[in-house]
Amino acid sequence: MDETQLREIIHRIVQEELDPNRIPIGVSNHHIHLTKEDYQTLFPHQPMEVFKPLKQPKEFASKQTATIVGPNGKIEHVRILGPCRKHSQVEIARSEAIRIGVDAPIRLSGHLDGAPSVKLVTPDGEVTVQGVIIAKRHIHMSDQDAQRFGVKLGDTVSVEIDSENRKTIYNDVICRPRADFVLEMHIDTDEANAANVGRNTFGRLIKPKDEA
Amino acid sequence: MDETQLREIIHRIVQEELDPNRIPIGVSNHHIHLTKEDYQTLFPHQPMEVFKPLKQPKEFASKQTATIVGPNGKIEHVRILGPCRKHSQVEIARSEAIRIGVDAPIRLSGHLDGAPSVKLVTPDGEVTVQGVIIAKRHIHMSDQDAQRFGVKLGDTVSVEIDSENRKTIYNDVICRPRADFVLEMHIDTDEANAANVGRNTFGRLIKPKDEA
Repeated sequence: MDETQLREIIHRIVQEELDPNRIPIGVSNHHIHLTKEDYQTLFPHQPMEVFKPLKQPKEFASKQTATIVGPNGKIEHVRILGPCRKHSQVEIARSEAIRIGVDAPIRLSGHLDGAPSVKLVTPDGEVTVQGVIIAKRHIHMSDQDAQRFGVKLGDTVSVEIDSENRKTIYNDVICRPRADFVLEMHIDTDEANAANVGRNTFGRLIKPKDEA
Repeated sequence: MDETQLREIIHRIVQEELDPNRIPIGVSNHHIHLTKEDYQTLFPHQPMEVFKPLKQPKEFASKQTATIVGPNGKIEHVRILGPCRKHSQVEIARSEAIRIGVDAPIRLSGHLDGAPSVKLVTPDGEVTVQGVIIAKRHIHMSDQDAQRFGVKLGDTVSVEIDSENRKTIYNDVICRPRADFVLEMHIDTDEANAANVGRNTFGRLIKPKDEA
């Protein structure tokens, strides 16, 4: 690499860093949230152990995994995320929902009305959980971020993903500000693959007023 | 359903039908194109049989399938498309490329320089094919369509997909007019899932001049 090429790369990185509308992208692989009760049933002899902290405060991927069993197939080694929640919930990609034969709706986390049920299995137990969802695109952000972007809880925005060969604009992205959230757009593996999202891919928020 | 609801649905369908920029979407599942020689090696005793005609003239999905073997996994029951071509080629989704450990580039059909090789296996034989690609988004269209849209071979356009819950704009879509092509945007399964594409989902062409 010569100086001209290096300068071009640095220029691009600095421009990106300075962009006030830049959004880091977090790709969510399929995962499971459990209540304490469901966790106890599936892992009666194991306290939940941290495998890897996630970007949002206190959230972590645990060492524990379970198998999701649908009418037409199963998904093995699906990680339990911690800490435990007030309602158990399974999040899978649309491609996986089709493969295992579950008609999962596209929903924000916690919106489980009418969502189908699915069986979770470990060597020590099994539970049936309502429900299974395909995660709706959303952006975690602090209240300061929301103020800066001029958005509020539940607003729908668009995010431009400027990747190589598969530039994409994701519309229907829901804003989720909370005092302690860290700025991060969550998309699933189907969406990451469709937009060729890699380690150095960022999103760029397009506010509703920009779209007019 | 009462008359008001019915009228709303019909109104929406008529509007879509009348939209001059409407593009039907064809979702390409993983598939294999073979030369006559490679076909002979994999299926020495079977002439290629039509399973289902495709939308583009003379193209068809055959009854024959093979297994794609990569360094970290395999994809079974992958359909051979006919008729035979002058170069063998394997097209898979990015999710599958990651799963089987192949660093497949995003390319238009036939652009195989530097693409990795992969082994294809049937009960009767095996061949190694260069190359494996992830299909770059493209639109098949007739010359009349191209004239109507004001685009030419190789032009890059954007297509808006107005699906429920996952509205998406796919940029980086390449125009491929040819006298006998039928209007159809090709995306792969990752892209279809990411944009929640169903049976009644259409695209809408956004010409470069509209984007300014």
